[in-house]
Amino acid sequence: MDHAVRTDTDAEAGIGTIVLNRPKQRNPLSTSVMQEVTAALRELSADTAVRAVVIAADGPVFSAGHDLSEMVDRTLDEERAIFDVCVEMMETVQQIPQPVIAAVQGPAIAAGCQLAASCDLVVASENAVFGTPGVRIGLFCSTPMVALSRSVGRKRAMQMLLTGETIDAHTAADWGLVNLVVAADDLDAQVRALIAKIVGASPLTLQIGKQAFYRQIDLPQDGAYTAMAETMATNAVTCDAQEGMAAFLEKRTPVWRGK
Amino acid sequence: MDHAVRTDTDAEAGIGTIVLNRPKQRNPLSTSVMQEVTAALRELSADTAVRAVVIAADGPVFSAGHDLSEMVDRTLDEERAIFDVCVEMMETVQQIPQPVIAAVQGPAIAAGCQLAASCDLVVASENAVFGTPGVRIGLFCSTPMVALSRSVGRKRAMQMLLTGETIDAHTAADWGLVNLVVAADDLDAQVRALIAKIVGASPLTLQIGKQAFYRQIDLPQDGAYTAMAETMATNAVTCDAQEGMAAFLEKRTPVWRGK
Amino acid sequence: MDHAVRTDTDAEAGIGTIVLNRPKQRNPLSTSVMQEVTAALRELSADTAVRAVVIAADGPVFSAGHDLSEMVDRTLDEERAIFDVCVEMMETVQQIPQPVIAAVQGPAIAAGCQLAASCDLVVASENAVFGTPGVRIGLFCSTPMVALSRSVGRKRAMQMLLTGETIDAHTAADWGLVNLVVAADDLDAQVRALIAKIVGASPLTLQIGKQAFYRQIDLPQDGAYTAMAETMATNAVTCDAQEGMAAFLEKRTPVWRGK
Repeated sequence: MDHAVRTDTDAEAGIGTIVLNRPKQRNPLSTSVMQEVTAALRELSADTAVRAVVIAADGPVFSAGHDLSEMVDRTLDEERAIFDVCVEMMETVQQIPQPVIAAVQGPAIAAGCQLAASCDLVVASENAVFGTPGVRIGLFCSTPMVALSRSVGRKRAMQMLLTGETIDAHTAADWGLVNLVVAADDLDAQVRALIAKIVGASPLTLQIGKQAFYRQIDLPQDGAYTAMAETMATNAVTCDAQEGMAAFLEKRTPVWRGK
Repeated sequence: MDHAVRTDTDAEAGIGTIVLNRPKQRNPLSTSVMQEVTAALRELSADTAVRAVVIAADGPVFSAGHDLSEMVDRTLDEERAIFDVCVEMMETVQQIPQPVIAAVQGPAIAAGCQLAASCDLVVASENAVFGTPGVRIGLFCSTPMVALSRSVGRKRAMQMLLTGETIDAHTAADWGLVNLVVAADDLDAQVRALIAKIVGASPLTLQIGKQAFYRQIDLPQDGAYTAMAETMATNAVTCDAQEGMAAFLEKRTPVWRGK
Repeated sequence: MDHAVRTDTDAEAGIGTIVLNRPKQRNPLSTSVMQEVTAALRELSADTAVRAVVIAADGPVFSAGHDLSEMVDRTLDEERAIFDVCVEMMETVQQIPQPVIAAVQGPAIAAGCQLAASCDLVVASENAVFGTPGVRIGLFCSTPMVALSRSVGRKRAMQMLLTGETIDAHTAADWGLVNLVVAADDLDAQVRALIAKIVGASPLTLQIGKQAFYRQIDLPQDGAYTAMAETMATNAVTCDAQEGMAAFLEKRTPVWRGK
């Protein structure tokens, strides 16, 4: 069967990869594709061999965004269903315990831009561009702007949203949307190198940390501190934290137990 | 009659312009000027020929901020009335349906800095500087810091607020307060070029998008997604979105109906 | 008695300095050190000669963070007590009326990075680096990320938190965590020069402004404006604001009364 989304697991490197696989259609995020991505995220996240997840795409385009043909001549409830599926995918990226890294090899447009912006980390090829051009076709990129404006700030988000113009990878890095810009033919290697820096950590610790990050980021500072003080205290009594601190004090390599 | 605020409408370009017009007094934002600006924003916003609004200023200074002579020897209620009028102007900039672009040709100081920071987009001449020096005259720029800190972040806002020093236009662009820095004699042309990129869009879509932007920006992400999913679904069933998507799929130019 | 924290007051310059004073142990933020810092902040803040507070450190390291030996083999309640003391110190930095400037001469790691990020302003030597490597020892830097993510934004904070890698001083400045990067042997002079730009202001005004800053920064914009309009109105009727405005209008130097 030919899936629009391909997954691959490299157990040795600890990497699960989700690849958007409709390059000729510019990797549209149709309802079925988004459901496949969400399902793939959940499936990979349940695999203990998967320590980090990469979202990548085949062909010259990362993703051109929603499948517009799905949105023409629909009822309001049908439109709602599309965006519910979209939001569920974006939230799942941040909800699974493993870090999720976008490997953006080309244009990431509208919901494609949002998908990249929703990942914990973004590595972009020099061929990548980012844009939210919905304004030009009468459908403002209102859900993409949730992720975009929280990454690049108000004025820059507004500029992208109102003009519909794309920004290149270096500008995206300068604005805080992208963590690392690399040569096109080095993207895969650089994503793997970044992940290699992460997967030596305790999976439990990464899970605690990632989930804590999103729990605190939208809270007022005092509420964030209340929540995070408790998170750190409970983290500190886990076996992996006790082992990690003991190993550090004893100048030896820790052995993680995952609890 | 000689108004402190001049308005001008270029129906062909779709631009309504509000010009601060007391250059000799460094364009003070007195209560009456702020009320005139608010009234002008509302009047221009009701003109269907106006697709975008520019806030500009005559003379070498964009605005030096509040009229201090209004604030000396006043009761607390009189001071409150001034800041209520000020906040109303700043909020009106963001409430009208059209994009508002600040064209900053010179120093934008205190409430003048706030007015620029409150616009959806900011184009600055190389002669522009931005500052919040109220601290030096005993009156901390507490209302300007609402807009400033949301544009440039905590540490940079605090630096400007505590030292009272100005930053130049390039620094302001680097910090996310300004979208574009241009040569002084090119400011008007560049503002018009920026607007030309925006006004091809459906006015309804721009209105939906601008209002959605400010509705979501201060919400926690999950609440923002709930609101924006509904916004996009209702946007999608508008005539202009249906036309825009159909035109895109049919590779033709859309014809907006404004609904 | 040998304290882990040394304080010094330069009444002429208006500067109170808190120095972390366990260079051989890399200035650990043990419970007792954090309590000493909190007490020193409160003591200096009550001294009317102290117009600004500097947090500095002896030796090559600013602070390596918590004292891990305190956290091994402890009960959950004991761990909680440590983070409560930590949060209290971080919040006290922002609660005292005077501006607090971090003078970071070397690595600021984990809670050391958080302490710098919690200061109102940060001046860093070119030898400074910033990092949150708790992930590597099983204890994710969840409380440090409260301050870090609010200074550098989501993607960059996540990168530091997940990889545990440090960033250099120039990167920290580019990302908004540091206000100023200076040569190592110029750190003290540059911190004093920065403070000299601040302490000419009315102490009351600085207090009003600093406290207002943290009160508004986490509020939605409309609530922030409601609070800050009232703050400015009450600020405007203080003697120092009346004096400051009058002096400005009369082109003379103001004389602060502190009320």
